[in-house]
Order: sequence, then structure tokens, then C-alpha cells
Amino acid sequence: MSAEQRVADALDAFRHSLDNSGVIDGNAPDAVRYLHDWTGDYLGAACAVLRPKSVDEVQQIVRICSKYRLAIIPQGGNTGLVSGTVGNDAQGTIVLSLERLNRIRSIDPTNFTMRADAGVVLQSMKDAAENEDMLFPLALGAQGSCQIGGNVATNAGGINVLRYGMTRDLVLGLEAVLPDGSLWQGMTGLRKDNRGYDFKQLLIGSEGSLGIITGVEVKLFPRPANVETAYLGAESFESAMRLFGMARRICSDLLTAFEVIGSECIAMAKLGNPDTRPPLEGDWPVHIIMELGCSAAIDGRVLIETLLAEAFEAGLLGDGTIAQSRAQARAFWAIREDLVEGQAKRGRHVRTDLSVRLSDVPRMIDSCRQAIASDWPGWQPLAYGHAGDGNIHFNVLPPHDMPTEEIAAATPRVLASLYDIVRDLGGSFSAEHGVGRSRRDVYWDWLTPESRQLMKAIKSAFDPQGMMNPGGLMPD
Amino acid sequence: MSAEQRVADALDAFRHSLDNSGVIDGNAPDAVRYLHDWTGDYLGAACAVLRPKSVDEVQQIVRICSKYRLAIIPQGGNTGLVSGTVGNDAQGTIVLSLERLNRIRSIDPTNFTMRADAGVVLQSMKDAAENEDMLFPLALGAQGSCQIGGNVATNAGGINVLRYGMTRDLVLGLEAVLPDGSLWQGMTGLRKDNRGYDFKQLLIGSEGSLGIITGVEVKLFPRPANVETAYLGAESFESAMRLFGMARRICSDLLTAFEVIGSECIAMAKLGNPDTRPPLEGDWPVHIIMELGCSAAIDGRVLIETLLAEAFEAGLLGDGTIAQSRAQARAFWAIREDLVEGQAKRGRHVRTDLSVRLSDVPRMIDSCRQAIASDWPGWQPLAYGHAGDGNIHFNVLPPHDMPTEEIAAATPRVLASLYDIVRDLGGSFSAEHGVGRSRRDVYWDWLTPESRQLMKAIKSAFDPQGMMNPGGLMPD
Repeated sequence: MSAEQRVADALDAFRHSLDNSGVIDGNAPDAVRYLHDWTGDYLGAACAVLRPKSVDEVQQIVRICSKYRLAIIPQGGNTGLVSGTVGNDAQGTIVLSLERLNRIRSIDPTNFTMRADAGVVLQSMKDAAENEDMLFPLALGAQGSCQIGGNVATNAGGINVLRYGMTRDLVLGLEAVLPDGSLWQGMTGLRKDNRGYDFKQLLIGSEGSLGIITGVEVKLFPRPANVETAYLGAESFESAMRLFGMARRICSDLLTAFEVIGSECIAMAKLGNPDTRPPLEGDWPVHIIMELGCSAAIDGRVLIETLLAEAFEAGLLGDGTIAQSRAQARAFWAIREDLVEGQAKRGRHVRTDLSVRLSDVPRMIDSCRQAIASDWPGWQPLAYGHAGDGNIHFNVLPPHDMPTEEIAAATPRVLASLYDIVRDLGGSFSAEHGVGRSRRDVYWDWLTPESRQLMKAIKSAFDPQGMMNPGGLMPD
Repeated sequence: MSAEQRVADALDAFRHSLDNSGVIDGNAPDAVRYLHDWTGDYLGAACAVLRPKSVDEVQQIVRICSKYRLAIIPQGGNTGLVSGTVGNDAQGTIVLSLERLNRIRSIDPTNFTMRADAGVVLQSMKDAAENEDMLFPLALGAQGSCQIGGNVATNAGGINVLRYGMTRDLVLGLEAVLPDGSLWQGMTGLRKDNRGYDFKQLLIGSEGSLGIITGVEVKLFPRPANVETAYLGAESFESAMRLFGMARRICSDLLTAFEVIGSECIAMAKLGNPDTRPPLEGDWPVHIIMELGCSAAIDGRVLIETLLAEAFEAGLLGDGTIAQSRAQARAFWAIREDLVEGQAKRGRHVRTDLSVRLSDVPRMIDSCRQAIASDWPGWQPLAYGHAGDGNIHFNVLPPHDMPTEEIAAATPRVLASLYDIVRDLGGSFSAEHGVGRSRRDVYWDWLTPESRQLMKAIKSAFDPQGMMNPGGLMPD
């Protein structure tokens, strides 16, 4: 059978199984938004985009794909930054969008848990939790369009990892369609269960390479009634990290965010929004946005004030102010958002999401700055990020007048010099963005031979035909 | 080659690789304590007990075992309750004790982490953390002799899971010798790292079936400066669980323990210690021990008082008292310990560590009590445990005059009726004790066909020769 005939037969089978709007031809204009990645850097190809409305339809799709030897790229909100859901095989691949599996199944207030279809948008889950006076703490820039299934498949991070953990730490149960079409059922809301291998841990972070997550049960938390936000200035990242340790102790781990912003980023925030103005008098090398959430019975203001007093006393803090209103707190956070906006205005640049041990954060930033200064004259480093998790976005802007192709050509080499530094420190090139296709080679390169072997063995155990997201995570 | 010759050759090879005290003949008197399980119910057999002093020696042992086709049972403190480390093949199995790999490798106060050999006793880790004014929160009855490697291999639970999670949640990095003798290196102290498959999650809870954990990097926490303990009386488990939800909200998740004790257990505590006396006036169906830990900057007393006032108001609480001293707090906890002691005095009985969703705890206890009352007249149920985690030890004492053989014969059937109830509720027969050999059959029976298949595939991927802890977790 020719490839064309095989695809045509498969499309017939899909149309037989799904309703009309469930099957989009890969060449149709409607398919484009599923084939373009969020960065806009890549346009992929697929023979069809499929939009099942039930778990049963997902299983049917998998069986049809298996029969016609089509690969499957599961896709959530398609907001990833590493081309994890962009394939380029118009004859051999389908995109399976979970967007119509979008029902919140149930909320159990006594168990503090929520069950949801994989395609529910993160913000909807947050809203549903809030309606019950609870908190689903996962918080990302893309929360208005990313889906919980994608968050789980990439073990997404975000701004509140400090207090509540990565997505992995929030997942109690999973349900997934395996590559043989069977449904793996693990939708348990148990908080304590140590029976044998925990399969869901493999699916979390597997980026669609082992199966298709169709349902999730997550932990909820009490919604903090009091939120206190402070904007601080420190002499160095060293001081900032020591301040963070002090904050953990004094605030009893009630901090929800501890973000650092190198002073060089302030100009970028002003580029993003000319009205931006940090709420501090002096010109501090490191700006810090710190947030704490607690119940009404705890005086969060006193906690922060106690911390600031002790930090001044210990010489860890240059200046600091506590938001007196929600509007002021939002203004502090706006600086963090504006600096991302400013980078976007500068066009193509080098982005990272590095992580190291907290004790290595200052050394990592120093070394990266030195590397750029010595090897990439005219390029401008920016260091900011989730310092409380050891996760720094060390980005680099190209010289103003550099042509895009030259930037694109230099990017892998700029990244390589930063990655070398992180690798030497035992860190990660991917704190929260994942591997996908754009970082697959560096991922594979860093893995030890033992890990590569385990990885292949696990992949074969789940997906012997190699039909799940080929080209993601692993070389094809 | 005869089996005897093969074993003799292997023993020679072990003696060549390890020092004299590293090899104990399976028949030697010194071997007995490694072959007897902690419950004393089983005496196993092995051709040798090996006590390596380094990771390199562990690797050598694995290679020798592979060559001579000997199975390996890794053993930590040997304090498990499910015969996870007791083999019975005197010709084909060695016990590999990690007890001489007992060095704390390093503590990183900025990163709030500790690296340790797998054989370090849990209490030593807790002490080392405390010396640095930090907390390693894992807390178990056996903490004076269990080892961190065993805690990880079984994903141990304990008293503080509520606040700090299971062992799984405390592990940032692992190092393990794989069945081919290679060393899998994952001793990262990163808090945010979402690169691909997280192999360590498979080793956690694998009960020695996939490899030998030799090193661990764990999270540390600020040591709570204030600890408040309350002893409460409630009308029902329903009220207790609602109280717990209220406590989470008011105390901003600073609770470290929420234990329930059915009133029927108080007689058992008095059997354990005749001086035991609950600190409440009335005769409450449910006793609760609640503990909260926080920094010096938070008034924990006010939090508990606020909670008690609101709980009285809401009708969730009958009576309650807050410990006025550490001695009084210890007296509260002694009741919990005495009731375990009392059960031991009653001799052989049915022990469980069931878990269900928090919302199902009252129903589960009711159903179990009814099942015992109707099907096992003369047997006495006891319900107590870590209610904040949905984990109840629903134990059953046999009639006073029942001969031991009769108890032993009835035990599986008593367990079966309790397990059926938990299974119907989507719960677990093993919240924290693990599967081992004694619960392998029920484990296997409950697994879905999909999970059984995945389990076998993963086992084969790691351990194609089937040399790791045969008979544990899986049928031989």
C-alpha cells in the first residue's frame, strides 16, 4: 500500500470514529495553529489534527494509528517553548489535541483534590479551586491557554514552585492511554500509598513519549487569606541567597515566591514599559520580589518586617519596601513582567532556564557573565529568575544591529558556553521548559550511558512500536 | 558445575573482593540477625551475608552475583514489616547489607540538603540536620535502626507525612548500582529540573527489585522553633476529618501531625502502660493528637487557640487541651505509643496500614467495624492512625483464649474482609509499610492487567536476569 493510500485509509477510519469537527486535514488552514509552535520559530507538518471528545475516542485513535503505522504527537495548549509538539512528517504523523477533553470532573473539598480531564486550561482549574475557597498553586505565564495535561507531561514549573513544588509534586493520580490503546487507570486521590512502582512518575515529564495523559487528579491547598509582597535591594546574589535562607527560617516556609532581578534587567523593564520604576531609592545590583501567603490567623506583615529587620542587621539587605496595597504589589510584579516584555521587543535573543544548587547560584551567574563578556563582546547578559528554586533565566541579547540570521547562527554557540558552565556545576539546562525537540541533542549528550540505556529500555517497554512523539526527547 | 561448587566459588570471589568481616557465611551464627525479619514471623536463608564498605565493593558484588547466577536481596536496617528482605534460597541468594556504607557525605546549608550513604541510620541523619539547626522530617518508629536507603527503597511514610510528604517527596537525588554492575549517578541537589524521565522515581519504592541504592540526597527544612501540641476529643471521625480541613486553613498548613485514636484504643494504651490517662474529662469516641511547628516569629499557640474556638463554635469539637510544657506534650504522645505497646502485649494480631481518600475515612472505619462485628464475633477492632493522610491502622485483636495457630489461620481471611472494603473505596492496603513478600499476592491481585504488564516490562528493562530481590513485589 502506498503511503498516500495508507494515510487516506487512516483518515477515513478517523472520520468514522470521530465527529466531523474532530478531524482536521493536515493541509487545511484550520490545522495551522496546531502545527505552529508558540515561539513561532517552527512550522511543522502532520497528515491530520485529531480532536477527540472522550477517552474512548483517544483509545480509538491510538488503535487506528497503530494499525496504519502513524505516529502520534499529543498536544495540550501548545504553549511550550521547546518544540515538544511540533512534528514534521506530513505522511506519518498526526497531532492529537486534548482541547475538547476539557471537563473538570469533580472537586473533593475534604480530600483537598480536584479531578479533571487533561485538556482543561490551567486557569480554569485555578478558578474552580478558588470558587471552593481553595488554591491550585501551579502558576505560569501561559496559564490562560496551557492545559493541565501538558503541564503534567512536561512537569511544568512556574512561579510558586518554592512553596508548592513542580507539577510532579501536585499530581496524586493520572489516567493515560498507552500506545497499545489500553487505558492505564491511576486516578487515585490517595496521599499515602507506597505500593510498588509508581508508574505515574514516569508519565510525568515524559513529554508525550510514553502515552497520552487523559485525566489528572491534583492536590489543592487552603487559599492564603493574607498575601504580603516586598521589593528589596541587595548588594549581591550571594547576599540574596543568604537572605532567602533566612526568609525560609523566619517565615516558616510560607514564602510563595522569591524572584531575583539583576540590575541590568531594569533597563529592559523600562523598554517593556517606559513608566516602570522600581520602588527603591538606590541603585542596587540585585532586586528581589518576595511574596508570602498565609492564613488570616497569621500576621504576614510582622513576619516580613521581622525578616527585613534581621536581614538589615546581618548586612544582607540594602533597602526594602513592603507593598501597602494590592495595587502596589501588582506594580512590583509588573516590573518582572515588563522585563520579559522588553526582551520580546528586542526581537530574537538567547533564552535559558538554567538551574543549579541554591549555593551555586551566585557562582553560576558570575561565570556566565564572564563568559559572555570575554567571548561575546557586544552581547548583553540578563540574569533574573526563580532564585529560591535555583532557577535563573540567564538570557543574552545580541548587539543591536545584528542581522537575524547571524543571531540564529550564533545562538547555539552562546548556549553552549552557558550550558558548559551549568554542566560543570552539576546543574540543569532545563529547570522548567523541558527538552522537546529543540534541546534533545544537548539532553542526549549530557545523559550518562547508564541513563541512555535505561531510557531506551523504558521507552521500548511502553512503546515498542515507537509511535509516541518520535523526535521528542530522544533521537529518532 | 554443581550448585554447591558454584556457591563455593562465589564465596571465594566475595572473600577476594571484600575484607574478612565483609563476608558472613549463610550458616554462621552471625548471619541470623540478617535472615530473621523484624516481626520475628519469618526466618529466611541465604548462602552469604555481604557487608560492603564502598560503592565500588557493591559493584563488585553485583558482578560476581551475575557471574555465578546468585540473586541479591539488598537490606537496610531490616526493620520492615512485610518480609521485604527475607529470602529463603540458601543456595541461590545473598543478602547485601548496606550497614557499613554509613557516612554522611555532606550538608549544604544554603541549598538545605544533605548527602548520605544509603546505610546511614535515619536517626543519625536527623541528628546531623539538627546540629546545623535544620530538620530532616522523616519520622518513624524504627528511626533508631532503619536506614535511609531502606526508607527510600520502600518510600517510607511515618508521622510527619502531612506536612513534609512521603520519603519520595524528600528525595532530590539518588545513586544506585544497577543489576549489570554499573553505577547510576543521579546525586543532584536540584530543586527544579524537568529533563525527561525521572529515573529515581522508579527506584523509590522499588523495594530492591531494580537496583541497589547506595547514596541519597535529601531536602532539609528550617527547624520549627515553636511546637504546639493539642489533645482533642470529637464525637465522630466525620467531625475529626472536618476539623482537619479547618485546621489546614486556619493554621496555614503548618500542622505536622494529625493523629486519631478511636476510644476503644484507650484500654489498649492502659494495657501498654497502666498509668496512661487521656487528658480529657469526658469519654469521647475519637481522640485526636494534633501538632503544629512554626518559626519563633509565629505564635503557634494563637493559631491552635483560634482553631479550637472556631471548631467548638462549629460543633466539631467536644473537648480539647493544649500542652503547657514539653513534658505534657510528651505525655500526649505517650498515649499513642502505649497503645502500640498494649497491642504487642496481646500477642499475635491482625495489623493493617490502610489508606483511603480523606473524605472516605469515616466510611472506611464504619464499614470495617461492621465487617468485624458481623463476621468475626469475639475479635476486637482498633482504629487509629495518621488521619490527616487518610492512613488508618485498623487492627484487629483475636479473642483472648484463641490458640496462636488458629489466629495465624484466620489472619488472611480477616485481612481479606478489610481489604475488600478498602478496595471498593479505591484505597490502598499499603499506605506506608510496603508490599514485600507478605503482601505480594494481594498486590498482584489488585493490579490492573495494564499495570502488571508495565511492571514486568520495567522489571525486565532494569533487571533482565531477574537477580534483584526475587519473590519481592512480584511472583517469582
